[in-house]
Amino acid sequence: MLKPSVVKELKTIVGPDNLFTSPEELVVYSYDATKRESLPWAVARPAATEEVSKILILANREHFPVIPRGAGTGMSGGSVPVQGGVVLSFERMNHILEINEDDLIAVVEPGVVTGDLQREVESRGLFYPPDPASHQFCTMGGNVAECAGGLRAVKYGVTKDYVLGLEVVLPTGEVIRTGARTAKSVAGYDLTKLMVGSEGTLGTATKIIVKLLPLPESVRTLSAFFSTIENAAVAASSITAARILPRALELVDQAALRAVESYLKQDISNGAAAMLIVEVDGPIESTERDIGRVEELMTRAGAMRVTRAETDVEREQIWKARRAISPALYTIKPKKVNEDIVVPRSKIPDILRAISEIAKRHDLLIVNFGHAGDGNIHTNIMIDEAEAERAEIAVKEIFEATLRLGGSISGEHGIGLSKARYLPMELGFDALGVMKKIKTTLDPNNILNPGKIFLNDE
Amino acid sequence: MLKPSVVKELKTIVGPDNLFTSPEELVVYSYDATKRESLPWAVARPAATEEVSKILILANREHFPVIPRGAGTGMSGGSVPVQGGVVLSFERMNHILEINEDDLIAVVEPGVVTGDLQREVESRGLFYPPDPASHQFCTMGGNVAECAGGLRAVKYGVTKDYVLGLEVVLPTGEVIRTGARTAKSVAGYDLTKLMVGSEGTLGTATKIIVKLLPLPESVRTLSAFFSTIENAAVAASSITAARILPRALELVDQAALRAVESYLKQDISNGAAAMLIVEVDGPIESTERDIGRVEELMTRAGAMRVTRAETDVEREQIWKARRAISPALYTIKPKKVNEDIVVPRSKIPDILRAISEIAKRHDLLIVNFGHAGDGNIHTNIMIDEAEAERAEIAVKEIFEATLRLGGSISGEHGIGLSKARYLPMELGFDALGVMKKIKTTLDPNNILNPGKIFLNDE
Repeated sequence: MLKPSVVKELKTIVGPDNLFTSPEELVVYSYDATKRESLPWAVARPAATEEVSKILILANREHFPVIPRGAGTGMSGGSVPVQGGVVLSFERMNHILEINEDDLIAVVEPGVVTGDLQREVESRGLFYPPDPASHQFCTMGGNVAECAGGLRAVKYGVTKDYVLGLEVVLPTGEVIRTGARTAKSVAGYDLTKLMVGSEGTLGTATKIIVKLLPLPESVRTLSAFFSTIENAAVAASSITAARILPRALELVDQAALRAVESYLKQDISNGAAAMLIVEVDGPIESTERDIGRVEELMTRAGAMRVTRAETDVEREQIWKARRAISPALYTIKPKKVNEDIVVPRSKIPDILRAISEIAKRHDLLIVNFGHAGDGNIHTNIMIDEAEAERAEIAVKEIFEATLRLGGSISGEHGIGLSKARYLPMELGFDALGVMKKIKTTLDPNNILNPGKIFLNDE
Repeated sequence: MLKPSVVKELKTIVGPDNLFTSPEELVVYSYDATKRESLPWAVARPAATEEVSKILILANREHFPVIPRGAGTGMSGGSVPVQGGVVLSFERMNHILEINEDDLIAVVEPGVVTGDLQREVESRGLFYPPDPASHQFCTMGGNVAECAGGLRAVKYGVTKDYVLGLEVVLPTGEVIRTGARTAKSVAGYDLTKLMVGSEGTLGTATKIIVKLLPLPESVRTLSAFFSTIENAAVAASSITAARILPRALELVDQAALRAVESYLKQDISNGAAAMLIVEVDGPIESTERDIGRVEELMTRAGAMRVTRAETDVEREQIWKARRAISPALYTIKPKKVNEDIVVPRSKIPDILRAISEIAKRHDLLIVNFGHAGDGNIHTNIMIDEAEAERAEIAVKEIFEATLRLGGSISGEHGIGLSKARYLPMELGFDALGVMKKIKTTLDPNNILNPGKIFLNDE
């Protein structure tokens, strides 16, 4: 709990209207998309870098946790205040400060909604590719903290690949600038990319400089249905083998298809066991040719049906099914344990086989979908209360299989709370040791987002 | 100096044939492309990760410096053993361990020559884009240490953008694996990108996993000549404004053109004051169209002459002039002070103006060329001994101008020895402090490449 004198100081820093302490207000800032919940002691809504810095200096003097928060759409508990403390909500620092068409960069505050930035740059013929599923709600600050991925990562990479520089408040309150407004810079260690994906444990970004690309001239999309998931996985590989790099390559399994069809009350797949969605972008002539080649590859790989979207409405129709998966899954079981494992793309058939065996062994329903193009599979164990314990064992086995195949336990959600206990499986003692040393040296009082990433912090 | 017992231990680790101690052998490992020179006490040529680890454990026990070295082509003194110690030469760890066409990755040892990897993957229709000027000699380990850039960075980024994972020996000898064989991974802090560009001060890579792309189907190249450098800079900007992202966009100034023409004994420019080289790549139809649009843009921007390469021979002709700059410059003056500043691309006219004023003020000849596409200008102060002092003042003023324009003092060469004294100008006290803390926590005995990046280490 905070001393009344500290609450008073916080009010002086952000203004009385921007410090919340009542339970009704606090509850809004207590959870994320994992549904984990924990009440903070207070919520501060700073309007400027200086205020963030002052709060962190105070926190180090008084030893209370500070938890940076964007929109709370995180998938691993990164913004949940598990040890109480003060939530730093960036909702007021939500300005696009600059879009520079000559330098192909944008400068934003952390509270800017990713989708807003995308729309703004696209209206100028520019492109900010990272597109987490929650892009209509999630913020750039949250994306930076978790290194958000998304559908287009297969071709365009993840948040990290676009962040050129940051203004960061360190855990001890100092303000530093990392990187530059330039495409390149090698002036010392890359603190920018150390901060991106550090889940708000090493610093909190107050300004973000991102790289922009020219907006691709055209986009073409198709869906293909298969009688087995293996066929679909092989078909996906054949695209890479043909040296085509699609902007999206999504896989949806049978259980997910059935859930979506029942949720949308619509027959999408005609009983198929798997669906691929392939989207290519680029100059008009080449997307036209590429989508034709992909169609041919799908047919040759034994697709039951291939549908090319010829209009925006048809394209929207294809993506609607993909987007409906998450809400649809909740109609099957009350809870889902959602893990975003990633394997080398050629290992997708192996990991799907392993997951299916694990599901059978523990008598669990596991639904798989996700980014086949980069090997990032979202595997969802659908459970009720009685199945929770078995699910936990299954998760561990899925991670073991993933690591055996040369993969990673998180492709884009981060470690946060959900995966902290499994991180040592992937990293080993020495690599984890390096990370902990960096944390301790930058945050000696363990102020910034404690209890995340490293288990024994909790 | 090393104790005889330590030399004996080193011989046991790498084998007697792979430990050099005679002056004639040591001198080969004493310098890099900056021509700075300093003799090591010994050179060890390990063949395996374990040997590297053992050497570092020994170094921590006996407190001698260890300096990792690739081919010695670095441009900032990164591999020069300024404090003596043992050079770790990776010439025997030069195997391409794997090229995986399904997963679009390659795994290499640090001693692999970058150009060899490029040829090998290109023969399979794949592409490793980073291409430092020294790609025929420089090694992947050196590229990783310095985060090498190159001509194609404007479209494809730098070394960092392609390194997915590493096996690294830490300064204290522990071996860690960072990243994964996958396109994405967010399992804890990004140690991979912290290591890349750390100039061999935080760890030394013993295995490197890089991402590959499909090889672009076609490449088109043109050269354009202008009567003023300002015209050329404006013409370069017009390409970005037209939302075309070339794979290379090079600028060569008047002094460089004259030097090349006299060196090659050939009139290239017909008296022009500046040359642009523009290269686009992608599907055939789109490169054909893009090169046509670029030609039009050049003409509209007032080019005196535009030459489109229609054959490989003509393309080679254009690049020959660009490649001749470095050797040609040495015919003007005995020494060049070469700095690779980078500014936001729209600021190129401003930085060129500033440099020209600085040159006039100090009565120096400054030659500029480089990667206009990403704002990375190689500025070369051509001097004899008598001018060295004035050049030093000019360098500082060029860096000040660069930073005022929102740039960085090094786009791709790194800090090493040459820029260590200027780094505080760019970073400020707190950011530099963070870097030093990371160095100290990972290398408490300051064993790995001491005297680099941080001035007061020297």
